[in-house]
Amino acid sequence: MAYPTRFDPDSGKTPAAPVAAVPSGSAVREGILEVPGELALHHGAMLDGAHVAWRLEGPAGAPVVATLGGISAHRRVYGTEPGEGWWSEIVGPGRTLDANRVRILSFDYLGGSGETTGPRDDDAFPRISTYDQAGLLLRLLNHLGLTSLHAIVGASYGGMVALAFAEQYPERVAQILVVSAADRTHPMSTAWRSVERRVLRFAAGCGKAAEGLEIARALAMATYRSPEEFAARFSGAPRIERDAAVFPVEEYLFARGADYATRHRPGAFLCLSESIDLHQVDAGRIFVPVTAVAVREDQLVPVTDMRRLVARLAHARLHEISSVYGHDAFLKEAAQLQPIFAAVIGSAA
Amino acid sequence: MAYPTRFDPDSGKTPAAPVAAVPSGSAVREGILEVPGELALHHGAMLDGAHVAWRLEGPAGAPVVATLGGISAHRRVYGTEPGEGWWSEIVGPGRTLDANRVRILSFDYLGGSGETTGPRDDDAFPRISTYDQAGLLLRLLNHLGLTSLHAIVGASYGGMVALAFAEQYPERVAQILVVSAADRTHPMSTAWRSVERRVLRFAAGCGKAAEGLEIARALAMATYRSPEEFAARFSGAPRIERDAAVFPVEEYLFARGADYATRHRPGAFLCLSESIDLHQVDAGRIFVPVTAVAVREDQLVPVTDMRRLVARLAHARLHEISSVYGHDAFLKEAAQLQPIFAAVIGSAA
Repeated sequence: MAYPTRFDPDSGKTPAAPVAAVPSGSAVREGILEVPGELALHHGAMLDGAHVAWRLEGPAGAPVVATLGGISAHRRVYGTEPGEGWWSEIVGPGRTLDANRVRILSFDYLGGSGETTGPRDDDAFPRISTYDQAGLLLRLLNHLGLTSLHAIVGASYGGMVALAFAEQYPERVAQILVVSAADRTHPMSTAWRSVERRVLRFAAGCGKAAEGLEIARALAMATYRSPEEFAARFSGAPRIERDAAVFPVEEYLFARGADYATRHRPGAFLCLSESIDLHQVDAGRIFVPVTAVAVREDQLVPVTDMRRLVARLAHARLHEISSVYGHDAFLKEAAQLQPIFAAVIGSAA
Repeated sequence: MAYPTRFDPDSGKTPAAPVAAVPSGSAVREGILEVPGELALHHGAMLDGAHVAWRLEGPAGAPVVATLGGISAHRRVYGTEPGEGWWSEIVGPGRTLDANRVRILSFDYLGGSGETTGPRDDDAFPRISTYDQAGLLLRLLNHLGLTSLHAIVGASYGGMVALAFAEQYPERVAQILVVSAADRTHPMSTAWRSVERRVLRFAAGCGKAAEGLEIARALAMATYRSPEEFAARFSGAPRIERDAAVFPVEEYLFARGADYATRHRPGAFLCLSESIDLHQVDAGRIFVPVTAVAVREDQLVPVTDMRRLVARLAHARLHEISSVYGHDAFLKEAAQLQPIFAAVIGSAA
């Protein structure tokens, strides 16, 4: 995925809000919302001069669906050009999440690699909670004059943010749809991410943060997929080099890692990876209706954790699906997600 | 696990073979076998001056069971003092693998951290195959005047060596018992190990190989266990430090990693980790009876791979067990392994 045109977060300038018209009567609005004064963060720090880069796209007057993805997602949810939008296989006009029927609202995460305030260079950045992301979404709704969202659709980290929002601001959202996210993270997935962060910190200490990010992302990619997919794709023989044998799955993972490191900041990876592991909401205090989707092959968010979440929710329904894409199923399984999304959002005519 | 008394592999001296008597009429023999001339390795290299550190313990004249473990295992299979022996919970007089009935033969792996020839400092070391380890075991049998083994009991890497031996030297072993090892490795487990090796090579390139080994081993530990175990042990809150939150599972993994790095050589880890991923035997050419044990929670050797192996073997039986210890079940599940081992080895009176 490529980033959309960048704003300069250091200039303090907010671009004019309305932008280009798009086909089928849709309109795109983008902007940067400045948070006045200091932003009080959930874990206790104060953040001065924070701003949030957002995007709202779809038919004027249509219900608004906030659409949030993993820690690498950003405000450009879908697009027509290859590489535009991180969820273009699922979201767009006539797609599983039908952008002809609703407006899609999203924003770059606080602490991430996008245009919202986040770590730059090697600056220390405060701990960020999913509650902080939910609070920024609330500020966006107020800024845009939106009384209530038709839904929040959140996958992975975005699902955690949806749960945090539903717990804190139930009057501002009618329902949430959560894919592969629970009320807290599983210690095995914390194990993987802890190793990723240690690798990155170690490499940064050696003055090679970008290389650390490549390795960390390579490891993360392995956790996003399933053994079944890797068995089908990567059973070939290794390439023998003088110093090492290079295995097909290794080439794949490190190609993905190297590509990622060109487009993301090491500090942002550390910040949002840790934010995942710090995530904890009280499912017993969520009264907004929840539609949950669990993927049986997900190594990061086990089906058992999703079942436990749903059992504690007041109004919830769990759909269990199977996918060789594991945790990444939300990016790929359009056909399986179609009826589930349609029940929440409505479907293309 | 602590290493037993070390021999000096550089002195060229082989200690006198018979050592101390142990209780219940057992005797211990240890030695270092010098391989004359050059050792031709499976992947094509020639190794000059190789030697193998071995140990044989048990009642004089009893049948001999070669007993081989993971890449961190060594020739001291069991002991009475804490820390003596890498398989003391399972192997010993009156234990699951009853050392009152059989003699236990083992050796330090070629390319490992023990007293057998392996990488020292940062020397390049040739690629090592499980066939090479099997070939060394054959030389040991010849050296000790053993016509045939009663069995090879191998777990993890040791199970791969057992399969390689059974394919190559069927006349020298009556049966093998393989726990958590298949005819080839699964691409998902190759993925984890590829990341481990990359971390280690990266750290070595920064002049910090020991730190790389700590991280690599921490990651490996996560793959050895199961999500179920980690959920039960590590659901507590993180310790908040200034720069980072440190999670309970992270403290555990990195404590294990740091401990490991004090006792193992980075080059040996690289060599034997790669040897696992290079492992490939032809199950259709194995005619020795095989008893296989698969662990449903094993993240490294899926039950499906063990089923496929057994389906291709001429004479085989598969036992599927469940254990929260995952791949490490062979180190822990004495009660479940007891009847399976007893059928192969005989049991304590």
